[in-house]
Amino acid sequence: MVSCTVENRVRFAETDAMGVTHHANYLSWFEMARVALLDQLGCPYRELESAGFLLPVLEAGMTYHRPTRFDDRVRITVTLATRPSARFRLTYQVHTGEALVMEGFTEHAFVNREFKPVRPPENFMCVVDKHFSK
Amino acid sequence: MVSCTVENRVRFAETDAMGVTHHANYLSWFEMARVALLDQLGCPYRELESAGFLLPVLEAGMTYHRPTRFDDRVRITVTLATRPSARFRLTYQVHTGEALVMEGFTEHAFVNREFKPVRPPENFMCVVDKHFSK
Amino acid sequence: MVSCTVENRVRFAETDAMGVTHHANYLSWFEMARVALLDQLGCPYRELESAGFLLPVLEAGMTYHRPTRFDDRVRITVTLATRPSARFRLTYQVHTGEALVMEGFTEHAFVNREFKPVRPPENFMCVVDKHFSK
Amino acid sequence: MVSCTVENRVRFAETDAMGVTHHANYLSWFEMARVALLDQLGCPYRELESAGFLLPVLEAGMTYHRPTRFDDRVRITVTLATRPSARFRLTYQVHTGEALVMEGFTEHAFVNREFKPVRPPENFMCVVDKHFSK
Repeated sequence: MVSCTVENRVRFAETDAMGVTHHANYLSWFEMARVALLDQLGCPYRELESAGFLLPVLEAGMTYHRPTRFDDRVRITVTLATRPSARFRLTYQVHTGEALVMEGFTEHAFVNREFKPVRPPENFMCVVDKHFSK
Repeated sequence: MVSCTVENRVRFAETDAMGVTHHANYLSWFEMARVALLDQLGCPYRELESAGFLLPVLEAGMTYHRPTRFDDRVRITVTLATRPSARFRLTYQVHTGEALVMEGFTEHAFVNREFKPVRPPENFMCVVDKHFSK
Repeated sequence: MVSCTVENRVRFAETDAMGVTHHANYLSWFEMARVALLDQLGCPYRELESAGFLLPVLEAGMTYHRPTRFDDRVRITVTLATRPSARFRLTYQVHTGEALVMEGFTEHAFVNREFKPVRPPENFMCVVDKHFSK
Repeated sequence: MVSCTVENRVRFAETDAMGVTHHANYLSWFEMARVALLDQLGCPYRELESAGFLLPVLEAGMTYHRPTRFDDRVRITVTLATRPSARFRLTYQVHTGEALVMEGFTEHAFVNREFKPVRPPENFMCVVDKHFSK
């Protein structure tokens, strides 16, 4: 299991007329955490991308426990719990202070620039081998 | 069962560096369809809001079948399949031409401006009675 | 002088915690009008793009006269007032009903995929010749 | 003259199909810098807001010198150069490393929740008196 946490201060532009963070923005926060996780694993998304690999979201789910507001400091933790194969799932928890405000998941597979499924890049699989026994 | 369809032409601002619609934007499209459904039911969201009712997203799920791109014309269909109670679910399908490109759901409950759960507004329940037998 | 008008219904996702349209979204509305103008001229942006031309914003300016709100119906009118050369300016006016709520401009030049300035595509210049005397 | 710098790592969600940061996002970055400047001055925007003051953008201008891309680390510096009166201007510079990639300004005035112009809040004027001679 590998995991990584990033912090965000809710931007005014991320709020909506309910006075809270618009629910779609949590997907961008998940993405920030995902990017940081790949960095931590030694597979920066930017390098995957220049090598021709894309990692689109195939499925996503979110459960909102309570709203967050402008200027709240939120922590987003992403976890890769099981050894990734062609398709893999990441889970997320969003906290303000000690409170779990929201959680969710995304599912991914590597594709090429034409969005055709491809085998994961070698350095990604090396990293996976280091963290998860086969 | 009630349902409603809206159309959108993918905005350039909705795309990302993969060259496709960024996955978070589909939640805003769901929201557009939801707003149109409430209009069609005779309960415009704007009026619910001025009466002090909010309808936040409590849960959401999305399955992406294929990417959409800048300038694609997409149709978003929202469906309320079962009689809503305190909490209710809407389902969505997104098409370009005949192809189903994406589907999902959102779950909602009425809350007041302090985000405390409240009974649905009366005119909403009247509308529900018209469309769904008890 | 050529001009083109598009309509938009303010999305909930476009609002912010002030209860009005977040000011950055007007740039996306300008973009929608710009795309429609290029269609009208017979030079769809999508085709320019697949021919390798990009049309980034080099400069922009906005003056906000009054706020717009969720569900407002806005009309965005874009005008090309003078014959475009390597660099050209578009102006915009946003109305709700009869009221001018906002206006602005963007400046553009054609570049290639490496963001190097290039001569405008031929079909764009043909269109320009049709509408503006040299 | 007072000024303040914030950092941002370009989010994937902030890019567009040109492969660069979508130009509208710079306005949100300006906003982040503005919020940090108000913190530094001892007038957090969050407190102004709960006291009933809003600080909408009345005018904005941007000049884009070169594109930024996903994962670029950008620094946004906001400057208040002259003593603010009823209406005041902030200027911004965005850098990646040593390169100035973009600059701009925003103009503001305090309004109440009905968007009527009001005198700036007292603690804001105290702060101003500390930094700018009358």
